[in-house]
Amino acid sequence: MKIFLAQQNYHIGNFEANTKHIIDAIQKAREAGAELAVFTELSVCGYPPRDFLEFDDFIRQCEAAIDEIKSHTSDIAVIVGAPARNPRPEGKDLFNAAWFMHEKEVKAVVHKTLLPTYDVFDEYRYFEPAYEWNVISFKGEKIALTICEDIWNLGDNPLYRICPMDELMKQHPDIMINISASPFDYDHDEDRKEVVRLNCLKYNLPMFYCNAVGSQTEIVFDGGSLVYDRAGNLVKEMKYFEEDYCIVDSRESGVGSQQPGENSRESGVRSQQPGENSRESGVRSQQPGTVTLEKDMRVKKIKDPNMIIPYLTAEHNIAQIHTALVLGIRDYFSKMGFSKAILGSSGGIDSAVTLVLACEALGAENVRAVLMPSHFSTSHSVDDAVALSKNLGNPYDIIPIKNIYDSFLDTLSPVFKDLPFGIAEENVQSRTRGNLLMAISNKFGYILLNTSNKSELATGYGTLYGDMAGGLSVLGDVYKMQVFALAKYINREREIIPLNIISKPPSAELRPNQKDSDSLPDYAVLDKVLFQYIERRQGPKEIIALGIEEALVQRILKLVNTNEYKRNQFCPIIRVSIKAFGVGRRMPIVGKYLS
Amino acid sequence: MKIFLAQQNYHIGNFEANTKHIIDAIQKAREAGAELAVFTELSVCGYPPRDFLEFDDFIRQCEAAIDEIKSHTSDIAVIVGAPARNPRPEGKDLFNAAWFMHEKEVKAVVHKTLLPTYDVFDEYRYFEPAYEWNVISFKGEKIALTICEDIWNLGDNPLYRICPMDELMKQHPDIMINISASPFDYDHDEDRKEVVRLNCLKYNLPMFYCNAVGSQTEIVFDGGSLVYDRAGNLVKEMKYFEEDYCIVDSRESGVGSQQPGENSRESGVRSQQPGENSRESGVRSQQPGTVTLEKDMRVKKIKDPNMIIPYLTAEHNIAQIHTALVLGIRDYFSKMGFSKAILGSSGGIDSAVTLVLACEALGAENVRAVLMPSHFSTSHSVDDAVALSKNLGNPYDIIPIKNIYDSFLDTLSPVFKDLPFGIAEENVQSRTRGNLLMAISNKFGYILLNTSNKSELATGYGTLYGDMAGGLSVLGDVYKMQVFALAKYINREREIIPLNIISKPPSAELRPNQKDSDSLPDYAVLDKVLFQYIERRQGPKEIIALGIEEALVQRILKLVNTNEYKRNQFCPIIRVSIKAFGVGRRMPIVGKYLS
Repeated sequence: MKIFLAQQNYHIGNFEANTKHIIDAIQKAREAGAELAVFTELSVCGYPPRDFLEFDDFIRQCEAAIDEIKSHTSDIAVIVGAPARNPRPEGKDLFNAAWFMHEKEVKAVVHKTLLPTYDVFDEYRYFEPAYEWNVISFKGEKIALTICEDIWNLGDNPLYRICPMDELMKQHPDIMINISASPFDYDHDEDRKEVVRLNCLKYNLPMFYCNAVGSQTEIVFDGGSLVYDRAGNLVKEMKYFEEDYCIVDSRESGVGSQQPGENSRESGVRSQQPGENSRESGVRSQQPGTVTLEKDMRVKKIKDPNMIIPYLTAEHNIAQIHTALVLGIRDYFSKMGFSKAILGSSGGIDSAVTLVLACEALGAENVRAVLMPSHFSTSHSVDDAVALSKNLGNPYDIIPIKNIYDSFLDTLSPVFKDLPFGIAEENVQSRTRGNLLMAISNKFGYILLNTSNKSELATGYGTLYGDMAGGLSVLGDVYKMQVFALAKYINREREIIPLNIISKPPSAELRPNQKDSDSLPDYAVLDKVLFQYIERRQGPKEIIALGIEEALVQRILKLVNTNEYKRNQFCPIIRVSIKAFGVGRRMPIVGKYLS
Repeated sequence: MKIFLAQQNYHIGNFEANTKHIIDAIQKAREAGAELAVFTELSVCGYPPRDFLEFDDFIRQCEAAIDEIKSHTSDIAVIVGAPARNPRPEGKDLFNAAWFMHEKEVKAVVHKTLLPTYDVFDEYRYFEPAYEWNVISFKGEKIALTICEDIWNLGDNPLYRICPMDELMKQHPDIMINISASPFDYDHDEDRKEVVRLNCLKYNLPMFYCNAVGSQTEIVFDGGSLVYDRAGNLVKEMKYFEEDYCIVDSRESGVGSQQPGENSRESGVRSQQPGENSRESGVRSQQPGTVTLEKDMRVKKIKDPNMIIPYLTAEHNIAQIHTALVLGIRDYFSKMGFSKAILGSSGGIDSAVTLVLACEALGAENVRAVLMPSHFSTSHSVDDAVALSKNLGNPYDIIPIKNIYDSFLDTLSPVFKDLPFGIAEENVQSRTRGNLLMAISNKFGYILLNTSNKSELATGYGTLYGDMAGGLSVLGDVYKMQVFALAKYINREREIIPLNIISKPPSAELRPNQKDSDSLPDYAVLDKVLFQYIERRQGPKEIIALGIEEALVQRILKLVNTNEYKRNQFCPIIRVSIKAFGVGRRMPIVGKYLS
């Protein structure tokens, strides 16, 4: 069977645009001679639709879209993702479903069994798990159709009680198709390939794996759809971070590899080069029969503490983060209906990296940098920020904050009296900048990009409504050590970010001669502890056992936990790690734990 | 059996304080002659612990607390709530469990079956549902012990596939005990009583229902623990919104009502007055055998659109909201370790009501009101705000913002040039106020209380980092029509809020002669549409069918949906309705739906 995979970027709730996008791809598939066109999980409404799913009107719009798409399936079969109503009175109202349509009819609706309800996922909030499992017969082949997480339970230590593919194997399928919305995090692509490969080995079947692409507020979907043959060889790996289409014939040698005794079928158009078949993921390869996944694959890596910083800053990861952030910015703006960004450019490394990424995503002419020096800014800060914008060719303004700051202090003097300069005065400067940026943003229709990094957010080293302001956080899931690595990566061919910005000691410049190191531990130690605590969810005992001083560990964990209230008011963060602040990490604010 | 119910207020993750609080109550129970002391759901760690549950260290601390509490059970049985590890490799790592301890041993651990995963609840994120159901035999009685939601599946149209009490009935229990952390929303107390009553009728057993009290960031638990006899008569209704303790003998006539043939047991100490037994919830009473609950009880009320505003502003509801908000403020401050609040007092009704509630929660001397008139403030606004603070006796400052505002405009003039006054200039005023309040807050250690109401938040009628600033939102789940009703309720005995504040047309006073009604529909219509859309999750079709103009409905829903990005950065809102903005309502930001 000639199967067309459509790796597309949808807009949540934008039924008109999504339906047109799907129908256009059906036409592409038709023109390529495909018999079946496969789309991604919840493609009709976009993933994740969240609480829109609780509106009957939203479900009716999904159904109307299915009806329209169905009318384009007279001569080609189509699989799309959309919610399906649960006809039983008991259980959640909906299933997360794959709709198989052909001859202008819905021929089968397959329900998702394994509903991810962890990190950024809330599927059990909306969906009932599948009650039954049936293959779909089409063109003489039996298709085992599953949805995303359904193929992530393979071994002896899974998150789930049920293995949907084991159930489907009772009906002797010929091929596996999985429609996914599997988000990006750096270094996760190899996991995904390994899971698809292990499924092929376990079931001795080829798999067509179609994944979503595009960024949805904070979650980046990276595409990279896959075809593996039944021997676990990679047949096709689609593009990452962009839309892509491909057609693969399941009867090709190297894909379907017919069973002995099966009739030989005519081979269709070849879309792969023979050499592509030999690509293997290699890493973590295992013997068939010993397929095991850890209970939470996402917290599996890097147990040697000395490998944490090298892992965080590995060029492979940094390159992926770079591309993901550019996509994250671009999609946020286009889906919000904006084209122009503004940001505060301090001459520091965080705003420099943010500015470079924004220019790449939106075009330098659409990114306005605002330099807002204060009493405490060093002269080189302004020079460095100007040099950066000259390198990039983006517009910039210099707006000193001295007069506003002075008028704040003057107005506050009856209240503050003779109390010494402190955090309050530092924050007034930061909030004055936030206010200026928002004013320009409101006046001209920019979205303010936030420049805080993950190490700052973790420790609360930032000012609410000041440098924590913004509509989208670019670096909020990127530790400071990774920001340095990103800067070097950006400069890999030529000096885009002035070297002085990279080499000078980080400073908020809110009081004379201030340095981050006055308030925070060395970033190489800080980031190591934060990674253990945030990504790996280790407690103080385990982190101290790595050889880090007890008082330092306790101080850092306390900073993280007592600053939950600040992060709670922070903007969406483009997620690039296995555990970002935001919807994927839900902490009590009034809690008192390690604090 | 003499059963002691302990309705206590815990601090999430504060094991030292919670354990001491529980052990102190065990002593109270012992002194009252109890044989069994019952605590609430996840009492050991506080509810909801959220992602703290993902830390092994946190679970170890729960286990250590259980060990300590266990050592106090030599002569009395104790039921507490705490997570329990799932020994099986498959499934989530934890159960939400009730621990039955006696003679310094854990005698039984009961797992929760029905895991709420909707609105503010995420239990399936952490917990595996129960695999098996067993009664606990103690002192010759068989106890059917369940946890919160477990008793909310009674009828033919539930959210769940399983009914844990049906399973337990196979072992012929004598009494039911349910430990809960069931949050408050106005008018929900009657639902809860009805559910307990219907369980008693269905199973012909008495129920001891022990609920948590206290506010945890946004979620208010209102207590109101219950004892019903097997005939569905209310035996005991404990206090609402405060800690309370009681002892009831299950062998009392009117509670246990022994079955024919059972041996007569000696009656224990009477803690109820005979008259109390006759109290019944009355409302929605049903015949035994026809016990039915709607699929989502929380979206059941008020289908007649003309009843919406009367329902929202009913005195019973407003009185409950009043008490809940006071508890919400008080607990947020005490659990965050703060005692003093600051807020902007504009002379408008929202800040007036917030100020009154804050003074009630924290003491007038601990609430600082700041009046920040601008060019556009009317003179009576300052007079009204001063009169209010004089009535309350709280400290206040008057800090005009003219100079700061002028310096902003002056600094921005090279950028804004000759563009006319607009939203940007309005927002500068609002953000200047936010900055001043935060500066004073940072200088002296206040928490800034936010004064925005639910109607404003819904429509985005507020300034990010300006009037949307604050650490806690008092009125964010209270519609404007309810704010008016709250003001009248506050003045029910004497004029605390000057009448002019209540009677004048609402205005943000950010430009000359501005009125809310310039930008928003009449609040009586707006709130009606918002209630349908937010609480009842009705779509445009259903709302228009109520007789509201189509263009107006579309305009309001679009305002709600396009302002998701603002609410996403808002502080925690004390939740008083069935659907508050915040953790219980999760919407895509880049979505394009009804927008």
